[in-house]
Amino acid sequence: MSRIHVPVTVRWSDLDAYGHVNNVQLLRLLEEARIRVFWASSSPDAPSTAVVEAGPDAATTTLIASQRIDYLAPVPFHREPLDVQLWIGSMGGASLDICYEIRSPAGEEPPSVYARAATTLVLIDTATQRPRRLTEAERAAWRPHLDDPVDFRRR
Amino acid sequence: MSRIHVPVTVRWSDLDAYGHVNNVQLLRLLEEARIRVFWASSSPDAPSTAVVEAGPDAATTTLIASQRIDYLAPVPFHREPLDVQLWIGSMGGASLDICYEIRSPAGEEPPSVYARAATTLVLIDTATQRPRRLTEAERAAWRPHLDDPVDFRRR
Amino acid sequence: MSRIHVPVTVRWSDLDAYGHVNNVQLLRLLEEARIRVFWASSSPDAPSTAVVEAGPDAATTTLIASQRIDYLAPVPFHREPLDVQLWIGSMGGASLDICYEIRSPAGEEPPSVYARAATTLVLIDTATQRPRRLTEAERAAWRPHLDDPVDFRRR
Amino acid sequence: MSRIHVPVTVRWSDLDAYGHVNNVQLLRLLEEARIRVFWASSSPDAPSTAVVEAGPDAATTTLIASQRIDYLAPVPFHREPLDVQLWIGSMGGASLDICYEIRSPAGEEPPSVYARAATTLVLIDTATQRPRRLTEAERAAWRPHLDDPVDFRRR
Repeated sequence: MSRIHVPVTVRWSDLDAYGHVNNVQLLRLLEEARIRVFWASSSPDAPSTAVVEAGPDAATTTLIASQRIDYLAPVPFHREPLDVQLWIGSMGGASLDICYEIRSPAGEEPPSVYARAATTLVLIDTATQRPRRLTEAERAAWRPHLDDPVDFRRR
Repeated sequence: MSRIHVPVTVRWSDLDAYGHVNNVQLLRLLEEARIRVFWASSSPDAPSTAVVEAGPDAATTTLIASQRIDYLAPVPFHREPLDVQLWIGSMGGASLDICYEIRSPAGEEPPSVYARAATTLVLIDTATQRPRRLTEAERAAWRPHLDDPVDFRRR
Repeated sequence: MSRIHVPVTVRWSDLDAYGHVNNVQLLRLLEEARIRVFWASSSPDAPSTAVVEAGPDAATTTLIASQRIDYLAPVPFHREPLDVQLWIGSMGGASLDICYEIRSPAGEEPPSVYARAATTLVLIDTATQRPRRLTEAERAAWRPHLDDPVDFRRR
Repeated sequence: MSRIHVPVTVRWSDLDAYGHVNNVQLLRLLEEARIRVFWASSSPDAPSTAVVEAGPDAATTTLIASQRIDYLAPVPFHREPLDVQLWIGSMGGASLDICYEIRSPAGEEPPSVYARAATTLVLIDTATQRPRRLTEAERAAWRPHLDDPVDFRRR
């Protein structure tokens, strides 16, 4: 039920000529949050969900099957990290739906919700290049963060 | 009915550590295609659809309300420009849905379809910061490119 | 004499197809460090050197006149922020030379020095678009960080 | 003696919040030009200088040892490709100095010179990870493009 909070720092270069964080760069920020949350790491501050041994040279490759994002408000430059909140919208056999909210820096009152998004991610066996099933360890690590998927505005 | 073909050149830097064009960068390529197709330009090779006087200093600002993308196949580095195909999925009062297919370079047989995507774009009056209606000139320029929206795989 | 230490987080997307932080992206990391060190900010953790009221809508625009960088070792992906060290190599009438070392995350022993670089930055009066002199407040804020410029390897 | 002309397309996303092509992105454009000029390719429009069999999976890896750039004028958004001119400033045993001028699109009169730059590139044997000597084929391909190195403004 609980969301994972990932502080993600905006770079000045994420702004475009309109002076706001570019709409494509918001997906870049989600990518950074996702990697920190799911990819296994020996870092002491890695979250308990960081259990996928993924990467170009690892046994598992993560493949993005689809993405969807609703933009709710323009994102100005912030020196403080944005509060990116992640949770699991659903787990399938070899895939999972990751849901996100991008919010103003933690502590800012009232908080702004800048965007809601979802990514469908498939775990691929690097050797066979075929989808592989989620492991029990992965399911156990992620189950506490299962919640309703994002309710997108359109259709 | 007819799609607009925009050649968009991949940069080597669009590849990520997996050696393919990064999933976020595909939305970057769509942004480039979209700007060339819709933003007014005095360039002689600008398409007839390039009629929005948009930009930070112009009377109209374009705002991205939402995006959705299905990734169908990894995109390798190509020296030849990809064949990005655009069409209009629907026109609303102040918004339009732009649909895309990202395909392998024109002339490659058989062609690969790498991704399908859609962007909902809202036209904003820069002075009032409120949505403004599509003009008759815009509707006339875009009507020949109306076609069925992308049929996304999920939900 | 003292260097300013700026923790700068690498993004996974800064890696290129070689699996290292891309050489151009290292200049991106320097840009982020430079903005945090020099641009005025109301943030409580902004350093005492952050005194230039700069930006597109501000009275001062910063203009990069030249850059130079020596790459010493490939930079792998790190979850912990890199230790970017900045100092002032010289102050002119309207310009300053900013020097940098990009090092492995603070606390890593022995530390790696990945790159050394310098940027010549000119302060421009936004209204006149002409260089403007460094103020006394700027000189006072930066003088404690004056040190020998980078000794580049070549020529 | 002759320079190699590479048309390089600016992306709208290369602009930063100042509304000009970002200073770091100019090095990105140089990277794209360099790859098209030096990396071997089966593409019919690859130049005769494209003879390095380089890349992550190839026998040769190219390593950037240093870069230097003078910025002469801000670069606005152009729909037409910039005219990036490359030549060889010097060839060493295992390295070469590549020189560049970034100019306004071909045909624009009078042409603007936006930046001058140089990259020192080392050829690395991927297997041993040690520098390897330029081959005779490489020297022969590049000799016609040897010319005086860039005369940088400072020091």
